[in-house]
Amino acid sequence: MEQWKEALQKHIQEERILTSLADRYSYSFDASFGEHLPEVVVQPSNRDEVVGILKVANEYKVPVYPRGQGTCLSGGPLPVHGGIVLDMSQWPESIDLRVDDLTVTVSPSVLTARINEEAMKHGLMYAPDPSSAHVATIGGNLAENSGGPRGLKYGVTKDFVLGLEVVTPEGEVIRTGGQTIKNVTGFDLTKLLVGSEGTLGVITEATLKLVPKPPAVQTLMVTFDNVHTAGKAISKTLTSGVLPSKLEFMDQACIQAVENFNPIGLPTHAAAIVIVELDGHPEALKVEKEIVQEIMESIGATDVVVPGNQEEADQIWHARKQVSPAIAKIKPTKVSEDATVPRSKIPDMMARLEDIKQKYNVEVVCFGHAGDGNLHPNILCDKRDQEEMKRAEQAVEELFQAAIDLGGTLSGEHGIGTMKAPFMESELGATGVGMMRRIKDAWDPNGIMNPGKIFAEKGQKLVLRDE
Amino acid sequence: MEQWKEALQKHIQEERILTSLADRYSYSFDASFGEHLPEVVVQPSNRDEVVGILKVANEYKVPVYPRGQGTCLSGGPLPVHGGIVLDMSQWPESIDLRVDDLTVTVSPSVLTARINEEAMKHGLMYAPDPSSAHVATIGGNLAENSGGPRGLKYGVTKDFVLGLEVVTPEGEVIRTGGQTIKNVTGFDLTKLLVGSEGTLGVITEATLKLVPKPPAVQTLMVTFDNVHTAGKAISKTLTSGVLPSKLEFMDQACIQAVENFNPIGLPTHAAAIVIVELDGHPEALKVEKEIVQEIMESIGATDVVVPGNQEEADQIWHARKQVSPAIAKIKPTKVSEDATVPRSKIPDMMARLEDIKQKYNVEVVCFGHAGDGNLHPNILCDKRDQEEMKRAEQAVEELFQAAIDLGGTLSGEHGIGTMKAPFMESELGATGVGMMRRIKDAWDPNGIMNPGKIFAEKGQKLVLRDE
Repeated sequence: MEQWKEALQKHIQEERILTSLADRYSYSFDASFGEHLPEVVVQPSNRDEVVGILKVANEYKVPVYPRGQGTCLSGGPLPVHGGIVLDMSQWPESIDLRVDDLTVTVSPSVLTARINEEAMKHGLMYAPDPSSAHVATIGGNLAENSGGPRGLKYGVTKDFVLGLEVVTPEGEVIRTGGQTIKNVTGFDLTKLLVGSEGTLGVITEATLKLVPKPPAVQTLMVTFDNVHTAGKAISKTLTSGVLPSKLEFMDQACIQAVENFNPIGLPTHAAAIVIVELDGHPEALKVEKEIVQEIMESIGATDVVVPGNQEEADQIWHARKQVSPAIAKIKPTKVSEDATVPRSKIPDMMARLEDIKQKYNVEVVCFGHAGDGNLHPNILCDKRDQEEMKRAEQAVEELFQAAIDLGGTLSGEHGIGTMKAPFMESELGATGVGMMRRIKDAWDPNGIMNPGKIFAEKGQKLVLRDE
Repeated sequence: MEQWKEALQKHIQEERILTSLADRYSYSFDASFGEHLPEVVVQPSNRDEVVGILKVANEYKVPVYPRGQGTCLSGGPLPVHGGIVLDMSQWPESIDLRVDDLTVTVSPSVLTARINEEAMKHGLMYAPDPSSAHVATIGGNLAENSGGPRGLKYGVTKDFVLGLEVVTPEGEVIRTGGQTIKNVTGFDLTKLLVGSEGTLGVITEATLKLVPKPPAVQTLMVTFDNVHTAGKAISKTLTSGVLPSKLEFMDQACIQAVENFNPIGLPTHAAAIVIVELDGHPEALKVEKEIVQEIMESIGATDVVVPGNQEEADQIWHARKQVSPAIAKIKPTKVSEDATVPRSKIPDMMARLEDIKQKYNVEVVCFGHAGDGNLHPNILCDKRDQEEMKRAEQAVEELFQAAIDLGGTLSGEHGIGTMKAPFMESELGATGVGMMRRIKDAWDPNGIMNPGKIFAEKGQKLVLRDE
């Protein structure tokens, strides 16, 4: 047995070191593309075990790949250079609410939806709501800085993190931030670490901010016979003085896919629907609902549905949540993107998507967090058709370029991972990437933390085809 | 003439290189403590000049001290090692609003209040409102990550920065973030740079987020005969489901100082007042006002004043703004602190302040952003009385320790600068500070950017006395 594997046994019980092919195989993929077998999977359950494992990995220069539930869409946890997968999902759940401070301290394994569930019991809310909240861990959300529909009003994961406990790549423990709402004591390592995709250390605990639960919510579903009109309606709403908690978009292909999958009576003839959620005091909502309705009608909406009760509203939001599984039924392979543009450029981005669709003869459906300029164009294809996948790769590349051309960014909420690493320089320039690289090298001199992510390796290209 | 001074002349017009003693003297202090003469003051007006200056400084290893309007309370712009003061305040004002994107791109010299003024013309708001907003530059706010009363609901400067243009210590230009609301493309350099106090580069442009201007605001002024009750009232309000836009505290000494300075009829007999601002839709405000009023009365407020019109409300907020100049009249020297604690610990922190006051026989007055746990205890003393200043130093040290003991932090919004650098390790530990230092060294290998700030020099202590 290699020395480093023996050394690991000093730090973690044998039954939590997995080495069989079957076990390793189940850690070889995530929700994106590519399969990579790790040499070992370890399942730490406390900070000291992580310290021990990282010290061994650093000493023997073995790559370490932290992983939550593996729901990542950009390849974050893929063990592209073998080594150790650090399965953080078996850590005991710990949710320590401090109601008077409006904070909660959690272990990395907690499923994100659980945090909000506990907060709600005390009239509080953990606002970030990635679509994967019921199956993904907060540790993964922290690594990727996950977004979600409520990002529009409340912000993304990073905006809710007050403090972290982190094991550095060399196995030292640091605490960043703390329990306070405001903190300007030195560099903001908290916000550097959140979204650094596990390349700078392992988060072993996080203190999160909570906000009062809004006393009421109001949903509206608006139908358009033209995608461009929908884009204009979104823009007009955002500058009206009303800030919706959610503002989601679905194109016709998504609407039809959801209706085929699980019919609830969505308008399948519509070019697009926009789903709005307002939250706040019930009296304020009555007024804001009218304002939004007027805007939508004045701009040319063909229909505005105001659900009569919570059940009807839930059904609309359930339909939105069904988009991802529903479109996965159209074709076997789904390339889910999250390139993001300035809010005013949504109609331009939609036009560019239409061009790309024609040019490469690929099926593109589009939905997402339109209020943030964060659309999710999905290319639907078939992994077994190598020629189609080649066209899909070209379409994705051009889609990234379109976002950058429009003043946007490669990724709004999925992260860079392996998928977008080759395109970093086209957005940030060599110097921009170089300044990030300096931080990585200073913190992780042996390059053991999640190597192969964010920073492209020589000659690395986007590959959706099986290699 | 030294070589580096000659080299500077190639990059910036001679009349914008100030070398006379009188000129240099006016750049030797800020709003904190200590006087340090720079060798040269330069006043760049565009990015390329900054590039040139930093290349020269880096080549000749000359320290560079960026400065806005010098309103810093922690020593941020003090040229503690001489060298070059980079006076950014002469840069032409540029405010480029993109209403449809809800963003604004500004030059570093813009006064913060000007941004909000322009935004308001379009029904938008730039929410961060440091008390110095009318005299401080956005560049200084970015360097220090300034807060302000509205931080409670909206967040601080950092929460409103989408993208930066930065000249690195080696004179390279990078762009971080961009025009989009969401961005997870690589490490978050934007949030690392904001609040890094000019130690990692010079910000030459910033893109900021705007939000819709709230349609209405409602002020309440609440009187207490007991500081502890005021603390409890704050906590109860924050967990009531209502999120005020501001929640400010003034103790009796502040109330009396303001009344002596500029009487408006504040209750000088009261132990404390809490000023609340709610914002949102007028209908919602009617309800929320009642909720807050009920909480305050149920917990033992002696009076709740609801201003009848905007003028009366403005007068209350004007009184709050007058605290700082008013208490400066009590004694010649004012040591303004911003140690911050978890929200629930405000009453404990007040008790600790009372102990410190007794123990060191110093005059302490207290006001601030109670809703954030971010109080401003001010020690009032006389710089000419060396013995009193010695006691003030000890009181400040113990005050920092009290905040840390209560799970808080050295600085909520003023920054570390020279003033708090000696205490960094007591909060973060040597490893925590060391990980920050690694970033500093990787970005600025010659240590030219604002040396002497954040990171304590060997043997450095808090000194409020003249040396």
